[in-house]
Amino acid sequence: MVLQAAAPSESLMPLPAKMTLAEGRLAIGPDFGIAITGFSDDRLRAAAARLRVRIVHQTGLPLLPQFNAAPALTIACRGAGPAVPALGEDESYTLDVTAESARLSAPTVTGALRGMATFAQLVAPGPDGYAVPALHIEDSPRFAWRGLMIDAARHWMPVGVIERNLEAMAAVKLNVFHWHLSDDQGFRVESKVFPLLHQKGSDGLFYTQDQIRHIVAFARDRGIRVVPEFDIPGHTTAWLAAYPEIGSAPGPYKIERAWGIFEPVLDPTRDETYAFLGKLFAEIIPLFPDEYFHIGGDEVVDKQWKANSRIQEFGARNNLATGHDLQAYFNKRVLQLVTRNGRKMVGWDEILRPDLPTDIVVHSWRGQASLAEGASKGYRGILSYGYYLDHLRPAAVHYANDPLSGKAASLSAAESARILGGEACMWSEYVTAENVDSRIWPRTAAIAERLWSSRDVTDPASMYTRMRAVSLNLEATGIQHRAYTARNLERLSGGVRTAELAVLANAVEANRLDLLRRRRFTSRVPLNRLVDSVPPESESIRALEETARNAASSAAARAELRAMFTRWRDNDPVLRPVLQSSFLLREVAPISENLASAGAIGLAALGYIERGEKPFAGWLDAQKAALAEIEKPCAELTLAAPRPVRMLVELAASK
Amino acid sequence: MVLQAAAPSESLMPLPAKMTLAEGRLAIGPDFGIAITGFSDDRLRAAAARLRVRIVHQTGLPLLPQFNAAPALTIACRGAGPAVPALGEDESYTLDVTAESARLSAPTVTGALRGMATFAQLVAPGPDGYAVPALHIEDSPRFAWRGLMIDAARHWMPVGVIERNLEAMAAVKLNVFHWHLSDDQGFRVESKVFPLLHQKGSDGLFYTQDQIRHIVAFARDRGIRVVPEFDIPGHTTAWLAAYPEIGSAPGPYKIERAWGIFEPVLDPTRDETYAFLGKLFAEIIPLFPDEYFHIGGDEVVDKQWKANSRIQEFGARNNLATGHDLQAYFNKRVLQLVTRNGRKMVGWDEILRPDLPTDIVVHSWRGQASLAEGASKGYRGILSYGYYLDHLRPAAVHYANDPLSGKAASLSAAESARILGGEACMWSEYVTAENVDSRIWPRTAAIAERLWSSRDVTDPASMYTRMRAVSLNLEATGIQHRAYTARNLERLSGGVRTAELAVLANAVEANRLDLLRRRRFTSRVPLNRLVDSVPPESESIRALEETARNAASSAAARAELRAMFTRWRDNDPVLRPVLQSSFLLREVAPISENLASAGAIGLAALGYIERGEKPFAGWLDAQKAALAEIEKPCAELTLAAPRPVRMLVELAASK
Repeated sequence: MVLQAAAPSESLMPLPAKMTLAEGRLAIGPDFGIAITGFSDDRLRAAAARLRVRIVHQTGLPLLPQFNAAPALTIACRGAGPAVPALGEDESYTLDVTAESARLSAPTVTGALRGMATFAQLVAPGPDGYAVPALHIEDSPRFAWRGLMIDAARHWMPVGVIERNLEAMAAVKLNVFHWHLSDDQGFRVESKVFPLLHQKGSDGLFYTQDQIRHIVAFARDRGIRVVPEFDIPGHTTAWLAAYPEIGSAPGPYKIERAWGIFEPVLDPTRDETYAFLGKLFAEIIPLFPDEYFHIGGDEVVDKQWKANSRIQEFGARNNLATGHDLQAYFNKRVLQLVTRNGRKMVGWDEILRPDLPTDIVVHSWRGQASLAEGASKGYRGILSYGYYLDHLRPAAVHYANDPLSGKAASLSAAESARILGGEACMWSEYVTAENVDSRIWPRTAAIAERLWSSRDVTDPASMYTRMRAVSLNLEATGIQHRAYTARNLERLSGGVRTAELAVLANAVEANRLDLLRRRRFTSRVPLNRLVDSVPPESESIRALEETARNAASSAAARAELRAMFTRWRDNDPVLRPVLQSSFLLREVAPISENLASAGAIGLAALGYIERGEKPFAGWLDAQKAALAEIEKPCAELTLAAPRPVRMLVELAASK
Repeated sequence: MVLQAAAPSESLMPLPAKMTLAEGRLAIGPDFGIAITGFSDDRLRAAAARLRVRIVHQTGLPLLPQFNAAPALTIACRGAGPAVPALGEDESYTLDVTAESARLSAPTVTGALRGMATFAQLVAPGPDGYAVPALHIEDSPRFAWRGLMIDAARHWMPVGVIERNLEAMAAVKLNVFHWHLSDDQGFRVESKVFPLLHQKGSDGLFYTQDQIRHIVAFARDRGIRVVPEFDIPGHTTAWLAAYPEIGSAPGPYKIERAWGIFEPVLDPTRDETYAFLGKLFAEIIPLFPDEYFHIGGDEVVDKQWKANSRIQEFGARNNLATGHDLQAYFNKRVLQLVTRNGRKMVGWDEILRPDLPTDIVVHSWRGQASLAEGASKGYRGILSYGYYLDHLRPAAVHYANDPLSGKAASLSAAESARILGGEACMWSEYVTAENVDSRIWPRTAAIAERLWSSRDVTDPASMYTRMRAVSLNLEATGIQHRAYTARNLERLSGGVRTAELAVLANAVEANRLDLLRRRRFTSRVPLNRLVDSVPPESESIRALEETARNAASSAAARAELRAMFTRWRDNDPVLRPVLQSSFLLREVAPISENLASAGAIGLAALGYIERGEKPFAGWLDAQKAALAEIEKPCAELTLAAPRPVRMLVELAASK
């Protein structure tokens, strides 16, 4: 339990490459000001202004520019760096803080941006006011490609959602926003050349070209590349709802409302398909100045190809026997279109075929083995296997997933260098604009650390301590991951017994065991239940597990556990009428009862421990069985409360 | 305690003029759609689209336009109404809801907007899903001028703050946004004619003319007039920091950092002053299409006029003996400038002098007597006395403050008709962009009801029930009054013991007793303490008082009280280390101790009640004395917890 101002090592994420603490603190008060020395441009000045606003949000200090007598932070930047953020650009910086002032040096504006992100995380309450600890940091990233993918196709993600996630990405030094812009459920970009794409393919929910330019500029200002993905030749139902003539089946097609892998697929055999894509790419690619363009290429179903005799004949004529061959042919022609527009191609594992040039980038959802195979053949790759946020895994799982582990661990230095990094993936079947922040954050901060910090920064306990601090801190960037949870609990409760509903919500975790069952979900199914409001990991239960570890030795720890177990036990009678009267909460009534049981078991265990009494024979097994029973998933939730209770039960029985 | 879906009379605010309930409910599901029949324009279509989004936020339903098989709500509008919202326009509407469909009829788009606001408040969880109850409503406002003033001068209010407050205003049918745009502490509008006004007079914090046009259009779309205020001839230090030559003292002037009434004042005797104002008004007034223009005119200090021999000579020459005379002369000349730009003049009480024409509007901060005096002389007026949100009074106080009460109650019908309505005032000395929402809302909803609903709608208990529902509902408009409180508690606690801090925060109220002491505050003083995070009325304590009323007869009520009193008693030991270690929370440590005492006293009282035992002689007096002691303000907070405890103590002693 951290009661004092956190040490810098407890508030920073990702951890810097090198950090040395010194004596003293730089006070941050209303006089705090920032000066730019050396190179300066609009991007750097805007970033310094944002840092000021960020500190205002973190502290509530009124930092009017006019108040700055002598600037506390000077930023010495040596040059602009690339005009738009580019793969492999220099992101290093040095930060020196003394009790009198702070100095940030960087060779590029992007480096300065990274240093400002560090500085913001260091501003924390000290004993007498806000302050930054004196220290010396030298920092640069381990991997050059550190991304977050957001799927704006399955559920629509308005511009505001993208903006605030970019802001949060910058706060944890991510540098690639991978924008999944089309899929079976929607084509999300305005096309002036093929207007039916957004008119018929998007339910009216699409980004205008102006909005895309805005987001690209917004990301650039924060040192973030924007890599667009237009997933082809599969995942294209929404395209075909607008232009069935480039499909492989006769059509007509309708925007897909369900989730899954679907059959509609572009026709790879007709020149008209490539003419279409050529015109579209010529329109759309220039909106995105990044050097890389993602063509998707995953999960192609060849059923329509097999059913189309013309396509079959084409295959026979051109020695393209299988669906894989047809896709490879398709990719080669698409590569020409991408190259013609001055871009390098990125695609999912499936695109990897020996006849593609080695300047493509393979994006692996399959894993390190697939990545290693590509690297050994000269291909560069990025990892998303193990970083799927929609799988609702604990942060520790993502954190342990190193791009250079598994098969990739035995690559040569030259081959390893081809592993560029990775991307967290937020597929949006089960998230909406409302709760997407709470699914992305704070876990993505752990992935950001995995990709930025040294390979040997792996301690999950340290990670969780810091992720908790960063989670709070991120709210100052405008991201709404915590605010959403609070707001939705009020919506669910109708304002009645919200505190008691929060007791329940803090003790459960959203689980993915029911994902298969959820496949019956569609875009018409509301995501407004308790499972949609709570994170996949309970911060409260994690804290309680820490407390339980001290139960044997600390009376204070036992008092805290007793208070919480009592609260769980007594919560259900008060909460039950609210749960039973609500069509949205009725399903969680059994979990509330189970929470009461967990509390009662915990209290019994505490009783044994405090009395120094040995439980009767069979007690341990009975309690463990009971805890296992109440841990069973319900309403797509798992009760996490049994975890600390089990620790107490085992402690009681070990006496 | 409302456990079932609220009856419409429990969710509507302001209450409609006429409402008849019927049997049944109109289900609101993913198929919900809106059709516009009859007159339609961009404003109406945009409002219907916003209603859909509002319902999405209230319910979490995915309302894609494509899903609407048959629209559930049809809007039949008979005409556009005025091109921009205008004083006295027809705002009436009729709403009919059956189990099958809903129909909204209105003579104007503004009327339709008001009806949509009602419809949104009616969407609530029913036993099997979201629904609107079947009913018939005929509605129109009592007063034509129903406003909210926001002071963007003392603390800067960014565009986003204004937008979300306009959205919330529309939700409670307010129709005038009074924008206080200049004062001693800032001139907040870009002027191209006199650029030093915003360059030297705003700390760089001003609205561009494009932003002003945006806000005016945003307000218009929501049926809200925008009345700008440029406060002259006093409250002009920021003007004079830029253009000292129009001042009455030699200068130089600096932007004022403190709060209070200051001496700088425009020179009313020089033609140059009017030439300046004439050019400025010609530039700025056209930005605001409303018929009314507010010149402020309050709190003029005549010290600089007295000290300036040239001004004194001018007064002697022109028979303007006093400061009041000089200001009256000034106002007449300013009136010419306002009139020349096609606007009618509004000013605070002080401007009322018999030589002004009766088409001006007097804005009264002095009260109904002042308003009545004006009305009896033929002047129209609006009331803000009793609606000052910065006074941190209970909603019930504002609610009881009728513009036609007091001296105004005895006016003739013709005179009464000159009382146009009123405005809630959010002066911003003690609010920032962060917490301003939580000072404006939900109390302004009670003022909105006072100004819209019938004179006989006065029951505070009903008002509080509905204000509580509307407070939750308002979050769906984007206003952050509740989210802010939650976020700032996390910031204060650093995420440690936030639940325990919330227990304390829910039991205290921000008080204004220390306002005089606060006068030492300036714009450099952070507003980031607990007092800045909590409302002036505790919703939790109000609920607990309701529970306490049932303590004699209900065991469940006593159990609830016991649980809460226990929590208060046990909260302090856990919270104390957090409070003592924080420079921001240290000041509230004594209140946490007092809360524990209140809990202990409440538990003792409950003990007597449950045992049916008479307390010993002197017990009652001792407990009341103890409660009075712990109620004393501390850290600008008042502990509200003693209120329900006192009820229990008195109940125990009455046995």
